[in-house]
Formats: sequence, structure tokens, C-alpha cells
Amino acid sequence: MPKTVLTPQSEDFPRWYQDVVAKAELADNGPVRGTMVIRPYGYSIWERMQADMDRRIKEAGARNAYFPLFIPESYLSREAEHVEGFSPELAVVTHAGGKELEEKVVVRPTSETVIGEYMAKWTQSYRDLPLLLNQWANVVRWELRPRIFLRTSEFLWQEGHTAHATEEDARLYAKRIHEDVYAPFMREMLAMPVVLGRKTARERFAGAANTLALEAMMRDGKALQMGTSHELGQNFARAFDIDYLSEQGRQETCWTTSWGTSTRMLGGLIMGHGDDQGLRVPPRLAPVQALVMVVKDGEGVLEAARQVVADLVARGVRAELDARVDTPFGRRAVDAELKGIPVRVEVGPRDLAEGSVTVARRIAGGKSSVPLGGVVDIVTGALEEDHEGLYAAALAHRDANTTAVESLEDAAEAARTGWAMIPWSTLGPEGEATLAESAVTVRCLTMPDGSVPASEDADGVLAVVGRAY
Amino acid sequence: MPKTVLTPQSEDFPRWYQDVVAKAELADNGPVRGTMVIRPYGYSIWERMQADMDRRIKEAGARNAYFPLFIPESYLSREAEHVEGFSPELAVVTHAGGKELEEKVVVRPTSETVIGEYMAKWTQSYRDLPLLLNQWANVVRWELRPRIFLRTSEFLWQEGHTAHATEEDARLYAKRIHEDVYAPFMREMLAMPVVLGRKTARERFAGAANTLALEAMMRDGKALQMGTSHELGQNFARAFDIDYLSEQGRQETCWTTSWGTSTRMLGGLIMGHGDDQGLRVPPRLAPVQALVMVVKDGEGVLEAARQVVADLVARGVRAELDARVDTPFGRRAVDAELKGIPVRVEVGPRDLAEGSVTVARRIAGGKSSVPLGGVVDIVTGALEEDHEGLYAAALAHRDANTTAVESLEDAAEAARTGWAMIPWSTLGPEGEATLAESAVTVRCLTMPDGSVPASEDADGVLAVVGRAY
Repeated sequence: MPKTVLTPQSEDFPRWYQDVVAKAELADNGPVRGTMVIRPYGYSIWERMQADMDRRIKEAGARNAYFPLFIPESYLSREAEHVEGFSPELAVVTHAGGKELEEKVVVRPTSETVIGEYMAKWTQSYRDLPLLLNQWANVVRWELRPRIFLRTSEFLWQEGHTAHATEEDARLYAKRIHEDVYAPFMREMLAMPVVLGRKTARERFAGAANTLALEAMMRDGKALQMGTSHELGQNFARAFDIDYLSEQGRQETCWTTSWGTSTRMLGGLIMGHGDDQGLRVPPRLAPVQALVMVVKDGEGVLEAARQVVADLVARGVRAELDARVDTPFGRRAVDAELKGIPVRVEVGPRDLAEGSVTVARRIAGGKSSVPLGGVVDIVTGALEEDHEGLYAAALAHRDANTTAVESLEDAAEAARTGWAMIPWSTLGPEGEATLAESAVTVRCLTMPDGSVPASEDADGVLAVVGRAY
Repeated sequence: MPKTVLTPQSEDFPRWYQDVVAKAELADNGPVRGTMVIRPYGYSIWERMQADMDRRIKEAGARNAYFPLFIPESYLSREAEHVEGFSPELAVVTHAGGKELEEKVVVRPTSETVIGEYMAKWTQSYRDLPLLLNQWANVVRWELRPRIFLRTSEFLWQEGHTAHATEEDARLYAKRIHEDVYAPFMREMLAMPVVLGRKTARERFAGAANTLALEAMMRDGKALQMGTSHELGQNFARAFDIDYLSEQGRQETCWTTSWGTSTRMLGGLIMGHGDDQGLRVPPRLAPVQALVMVVKDGEGVLEAARQVVADLVARGVRAELDARVDTPFGRRAVDAELKGIPVRVEVGPRDLAEGSVTVARRIAGGKSSVPLGGVVDIVTGALEEDHEGLYAAALAHRDANTTAVESLEDAAEAARTGWAMIPWSTLGPEGEATLAESAVTVRCLTMPDGSVPASEDADGVLAVVGRAY
């Protein structure tokens, strides 16, 4: 195998990340500070995420809509914690249509406020509830220390917003999204293990009564928040008069939720699965699952390679032909590794003369010579295995880098390279504040069996502690 | 049939349009002037448009990417006509992250400039060409006289951007999008006849060398531009240094194109097919193709209705159950008409006792009693017919309201209620300027056989003249 073109992860992880993003042609920095250009290869991974997530959200009963990018500045101020949380990150439009605006408008950092305004119109009676909405949109939060996919001044996401008749119903829906939409998506599409938990008061969304989160461990031992689902209580419902006439004829205030996942998941995918050769894309998301490469010209080689592509496509594999024999084979192979294409089928004259081709596997590793007639079964089997393999590797990595501790000092020590699990009753908000001084945070509170604590005070609650992106 | 709840088209067409948009729950005005909220029913039609258009664009070889919302103000100024065309409509961000920005940024009105900057990086050699990109995004153009879907300060669209080695290749690609992507989409999905033509110099996109357009006639005889495809010549390539090393080793300037369709098509759909009862949604786009309604409770009625839904779904029909018997049947039927649901299957106790149900057709009109066993075949047949029926009706309407004329005066007269077709050699830029004084414009130049003129000066070129949205 030709040598890699990336900075090794162990040498400089942030640099490795930047290298992969650039060299696998995933994204580029935008011209305005903190913005990004998502290049076709990166975007095609995002499109597959989006399609699958969209299907799951619709199965959970939510319908897509679209709300405006521009929000009157006054809307944000209506919920006190919300405006305090977002003010430092807002981009403000002061001029439009050649004139100064009478009321400044902000570019949405999230849409609770504007959607709240319309929910108030649309929820007249208990018959209109629950109102389950979702939108796919761009949002803007000005970033001082931007990093592509992880923290960008503009990013793409889905944001769900729902209104319910009761607190119980809102709570169950936030939980449903967390456990039945987001968690299986991460496992089944991203091949990533996630810890499900609730945020501490310190880490909660600005305006939420409770924030549920999914946290994944990256290859450097840090945490990345992969998605959140918020119970908003009646905070926004009160601020925006989202009320309804109950079956008993009383005017009642709604209970709302919001929940989101974003292009940040692309960052999680890169840092959760990548290695020193580059990306490793889970097969179900891979734009190209099998790259069929003509090693070099020779009698019948191109025809055989084309036939392999056709056979794979007929079996539902996303296969592509690489017949660029004027580019050195080694360079093309390195590029396929960089891009994380799960399987390469190398078709060359010598092998072909013996009726075989070489199958190289990006995720399990290794190369083997296989008979031409068996290649389709081998590739389809490999893609199934690779999904499981990636998941298992990520889980093993997380287990190996998670330490159960009983003291603040041990938690701080463990968080140097991975996560600590510490009883929340031992750590508490004061311990949390102490750790925060050295950029170590409580990622979430979870139960020993992996379930989500009903409250902070439940018996046996564990704090997952680590450094985070 | 209960009476309609809309202002009749003949009484006040703009009012009828507003009524339909509101009462069919398609969209609402946003809080910031000129913006819109696309409600779930409207958005679900847009999603189907998007999915189908996206497939066609990918078949034409373009790949999706995402470029930033924010563009440095200086980028726009690099192409003189472009900045002049868009300056009055720009929204400008002056403050972000709590500070005044050093360089103001504009919210993209379209992305030629920012994409041009990246094309310049990515097209190094002739091997990188053609570079075929598309993005789905929101754009902002401040509107003084906004109207939902037709002219809004923010709208959703796809914008394609391509770079080519030769003028010929760029021209053919702009033409391919126009004729092989957009035109068949309008016919096959929107069920709308469109005139394909080129714009006059006066009506061209700001910065384009040639603009190809698709124009449709609305029910009030006005024109709506449904999509455009631009040859940009080397205007943007020169402004952004989009060049490449040719096979002969020479540094050459690229030729670029751009092309777009937007949520404006929703406006076209409403005004192109709607009638005094409301929307008529082409079956291929309809979120609900068949609404199976329980007329009133009765033995076996709900079960029978459920079975019809299941049978329809099994045959690939988007069918939904309406069992809200506590709402008067008449009101539910009016609502289904308003929303333009192509077929209603009405299941009531009396019919059912005789083994039949009633099929009501929104597009062809009429109601008939059909045996329960035959309902699936009848509905699927109706949906096929209705697509053709809508197209034929729109074409007949356009033909009936288009007049061939030979003079400026007759063109002005015809444009009071519809379109005029006048030889371009008769009208010319001077006649065009005269008509423009009374808001009558040349929608496009086309050939008598419906093909696109190779140039303005080609023999027999006709100008399609009318009022436009």
C-alpha cells in the first residue's frame, strides 16, 4: 500500500481532521469567516443522512414545513433565557432593499420563536394537538473559533418543533425522538454507538426545561454531541401565547418541544471512524460502496470491470467504475482509501487471466483474490459485515477509553484521554463547575443500564465527563 | 355540492389567489415583510417537486453541493451588470457576533459569485471540465410588492452552476437543462404546457450572454416565468479567474452557465390549474391522491373505508382515510376540493348496503357510483386520465387566449387578456420599449414550431408578448 498523505492522528488530531476534510474533498472554508462550502462528495453523504432521517421523522408523525430565515429582533427577546443564550452569536440585517430597516432582523440561530408565533395561530382547539412540525434549513450562529462541520457560522440541520396538550405528552414525544428516531439512526446509519442521557442545568439549551442528548466518543477520546431533544415546558408557549381550547372548554397553555441534528454529524462520522489513511464511510451512507478499478489496460480488462459494475448495480450496490489508467494506480488507490470507499474491486490483466480479481477492504482491512464469479456475493457480504465492524470498533474504542471513577480528581485525570463515569451524587453542580475550569464538562447524565434518568436526583445517576467539541 | 368559500376568479383573480393560498393551508405571510411560511400541505407538494427535479438534474450529470448564505459584498461588484441588477434587492448583514463587521456581507440573492470563486480553485485542467454543480438553497431578494410564492423576499430554489471548456459545450448544457430537464418536468409533473424561448436583451439575467426561459399562461391570461437557464459566456469566468490548462498546455478561460427553478412554481401550479373551487393538484404531485371518506357512521362503513385505503395503498396510490364523522360531510368535501385532492371515494351506509361507493373526481368533475370491487382500478385509471386532462385543459386555455398579430397596437390589445404572438422583426427593441410603458413585456422569443431561436435575428422569430407576474 502506498504511504498515506495525512498527518497521523496520534501526532496531531486536529490537523489530521483538517487534512481529511480537505483531501477527501468533503468541504472547504467559505469566504466569510466561519462559513463552509460542502463539496459534492461531502454533500452526497449528507444527502443520504438527510433522506434516512427524514423518513424516520415522518414515521414519528411530524410533517415538514418551512419558516423564514429572518426573525424580527423583538421575537428573540420574548423568552429571557433564550435571548441571553443566543445574543452573542446573532447575525443582524440592518439594511435591505437599499434602505435602513425600521426594525432590525436577525438571521435565525434556531426557530423556536418564529415557529412559536405560528403555532399560536394554528393550535385553536385540542383537536389541533399534537402539532408536529419539522424543517430542514440553514441556521447562523457566529463562531469565533470555527471548525468545519463542528462549529461553523452557518450550518444545515433539521429542527423539529411540536406543541402538545399536556406535559406528559410533550415529554414522551421528546423522548420518542431521542430514543426511537435519533438513537437508531446513529446506530443503523452512522454505525456509531451513542450514550443517551439528559443534560445538567448548566449544559441545557437556552430556554429548555430539560435537554436530552446523544453523545459519541471521537477517536481522540473527546465527546461530540450528535443531537438533542428538548422539553421546553411552557416557556415558549407562554411567551408566544400558544394555547388551545380544551375538550372541557377551558383555555389552556400548550407544552412544546424542539429537537435537532445537523451537518455536525458529518464531523462525528469523520472523527468517529476515520484512521490514518482517511475516512471510513459506513456502507449504508457511502456514495460509492464499491469502486471497481481497472489496474491497467489489458485484453478484456475494461469489459470485465464494466461487467462487475453492472452485476453489482443489479444487486443494489452503489458501484462505480474507475478506468483512469493514465493516473498511477497507487494514487487512485490512496484516493479511494482517503474517501473511505468501503470496497475496491481491482481488475488487472494477470488476475483476470486466471479468472479472478482482487477485493480490497477499507474497513476490515486486507486484500484477497477472489474468483470473478463470486465477487458480487463477496462484496455484498463485506458491506453488511463492515457496518457491524465499524460499530463494534467504535464501541470497543469507547469502552477502552471510559473509566469508572469515584472522585473529582480521578474524573479530571480520566478526561485527559477519554471519558470518566462518576456518580452524579458525588460530582454534583459544584464538582461540575470545578471541572469546567479546565474545559472538562458533564456530557450527560445517564443510568448504569444506559437508560435516561427520569430526573437528576434519581438513584444511581452517572455523569459522563469528558472534553468535548 | 356545497357552495365555494373562495372569491370567484372572474371577480378578482389576485384575491382568489390569496384566498386559495390561505384556505388550502399552503402558506402564510412571514413576520418580516415579504417573507413566507410554507405550511405542511404546501411544503409536501414542494417536496415532491424537489425529489423529481433532483433526480432529473442528477441524470443530467450535475452533483449537489452547498455554498454559504453569506457573500462578501466585494464579490458582487466584480461583475458589473450583475451587481447593478441585484443591488436594489440585497439584504446586508452589518453586525454579527456582537460587533460591527469589517466587511459587510450580503445574503445571497443568487450564487454565481461565490460559486465562481470556488470553481476557479477546482478547475485546474481540462480533465476537471465540465464541472457540473447544483444546490438547493434559500435566497433573498428584497421585494417591495411581495406576493406569496411569486415574489417573496426569501424563496427556496435549486440553482445549477457549471463550467465548460468551450462556448459550444456551455451552450449545449444550458440548452439541455432547458429542454431535457425543465421542460419535461413541467409537462410530466406539473401537467403544464410551457413555451420555450430565449429572452430579449432587455429581459436577460444580470450578467448573462443569453437567457433561455420557460413561460406558462395562468388562468387570468398572464404569463409566469417557470424557470430559466443562462449562458453566462465568459463574464463570470473572467471576473473570478475561472480558467484551466488545456490539453495543449495553454491557459484558457472557462465558459459558465447557471439555471434555476424555485418555489415560484407552486404559484404557477395554483394559478395554472386552480378553479373557483380551489386548487387542482396534478396527481403525480398530490400529497393525497385519493381521500377515502366515511360519509357517516353505519354498519361496516369504517371497516370498508379502511379496506379501500389499504387496497389503494397496495396499488401504489397515496390514499388517506377521513373518518371525522363529527365534522359535517359537506365541510369535509369542500375542504378536499379546496386542497385539490384528485379523487374522493365516499363510503356511506346506503351505498355500501348495495355493494357500492361513490367516486368524486376533482379534475374531470362528476360523481359516480361504482361497485366496491372495482374502485381501485377506477381510481388508478382516473389519476392517469387526470394528469392528461389537466395538461390538455391548460393547453386549450393558452391556445384560446393567444392571438397572432402583426402590429404593436394589436399586440397591446391582445395582451389585455392573454398573449400576442408577433414577429420579432416587426416588434423589435423599440416596440418592446413602447409596450413596456404599459407593463406589457416580451416573455420570450420562440420559433413558430416551438423550438428555441438560435439568435434574435433568425428568420421567422416570434415574440410572445403579455403581462407577467
